[in-house]
Amino acid sequence: MTTPTIEQIYRHVSVRRFAPDPVPPELVETIVAAGQRSATSSNLQMYSVVAVTDPARRARLAELCGDQAQITEAPVFLAWCADRSRLDRVCRHRRYTQAVDHVEAFLVATVDVAILMQTATLAAESLGLGGCYIGAIRNHPAEVIELLGLPRLTFPVAGMTLGRPAVEPTRKPRLPTAAVLHWETYDDRDEEALVEYDRVMVETGVYRGRQVPVPGLEGEIEDYGWMEHSARRVSQPSRTELREVLRRQGFELA
Amino acid sequence: MTTPTIEQIYRHVSVRRFAPDPVPPELVETIVAAGQRSATSSNLQMYSVVAVTDPARRARLAELCGDQAQITEAPVFLAWCADRSRLDRVCRHRRYTQAVDHVEAFLVATVDVAILMQTATLAAESLGLGGCYIGAIRNHPAEVIELLGLPRLTFPVAGMTLGRPAVEPTRKPRLPTAAVLHWETYDDRDEEALVEYDRVMVETGVYRGRQVPVPGLEGEIEDYGWMEHSARRVSQPSRTELREVLRRQGFELA
Repeated sequence: MTTPTIEQIYRHVSVRRFAPDPVPPELVETIVAAGQRSATSSNLQMYSVVAVTDPARRARLAELCGDQAQITEAPVFLAWCADRSRLDRVCRHRRYTQAVDHVEAFLVATVDVAILMQTATLAAESLGLGGCYIGAIRNHPAEVIELLGLPRLTFPVAGMTLGRPAVEPTRKPRLPTAAVLHWETYDDRDEEALVEYDRVMVETGVYRGRQVPVPGLEGEIEDYGWMEHSARRVSQPSRTELREVLRRQGFELA
Repeated sequence: MTTPTIEQIYRHVSVRRFAPDPVPPELVETIVAAGQRSATSSNLQMYSVVAVTDPARRARLAELCGDQAQITEAPVFLAWCADRSRLDRVCRHRRYTQAVDHVEAFLVATVDVAILMQTATLAAESLGLGGCYIGAIRNHPAEVIELLGLPRLTFPVAGMTLGRPAVEPTRKPRLPTAAVLHWETYDDRDEEALVEYDRVMVETGVYRGRQVPVPGLEGEIEDYGWMEHSARRVSQPSRTELREVLRRQGFELA
């Protein structure tokens, strides 16, 4: 069962190399406006996006986001922000005080902006643009906040490069849907599916044929696959100063 | 500038009344599989969705989510979960220990599942289905977690009803894109745009012609609009126990 939208969804791939063509501002407006049509909690629209085209500012963002060349190459960088600052202005106008102490206040704005950005991304891809989410925008959040002039009660949840794709990267296989979709209650018996996915991912060659010791079997080696990639990735604490930066932005997360 | 995908995006509306037709499991698989094609941080796929069709379990979910009739009416309820539990199983398999103490660990999984669910929702809408996100799944998160058998390191970020729409609700206007999209740096001079949007929202009639006192002008009344709606909404702390429930699920948010 398919539709033109589902076909478009399947064409997604993260693009990290861009043609030099600029992206007209109207196109950025078109994709953000499309994003705004999606659901937003209680119609509060707790999101903002800062579009950066200035080369010097993009170069600085590239530095702050792990020296990623794609950020200087892409003609546009988008900073997708959770935004309760606008609601603070609304509250002042109506003489209320916004309650933002709890995790919920940050979580709901984060989901709001993620919905906006994903819809905008699909709109962009349908227009022949491409890009890549940049989680590394959270590597040095305080500096990004200063660079983009983000006020209290905003936070850059994700970055994104945007432009005309220069090359078509290959799509990575995903976990079998049965490992992600549970019926009635959560089912954690997924070991077989994970091992099989690991094998499929090895075959893609994205890990370049690397090998690693077999855990618990001295002298044995095996393919470096998705499980080793993922386990290494998540065994390191990352971006440990977010809590403090969020606090300074007004999100207490109590 | 438009595309079939953008046209589909513009057809979105939150559906809360459903025809009695069941949704075949294959259709749920189709939309979740489509969601999986979207970006996921480092290909870690930190998400799960629990699909509930059992009427008794849906009735209990309806109670837990603010007694919403749409949850008993819709043939399927989806619980979209941030999931680092699967990565814990991967880590055990590879003899690593997952680092999950910091806000980042929860935030990145939350964004991952939000991207999945929004893509799946667009896929569902393109297939003639409809639904509504249910933030109230976070009203009684501990009870929802128990009901759905959600293990440590999972959390239900959003619920969703899914079914064949019985009626076509009207679409709400959104903020002007210029109030959401900032160029180069954040611009907070949006008072005029907010006042104008307030007026547009009053005209939709969603606030049923209610009137409220003008702040600071004794005896004066004015239309209850988006700003009053929003200010009232966000001036009340909500779901204040999330932090504690997240901690019990293994997310320290340090």
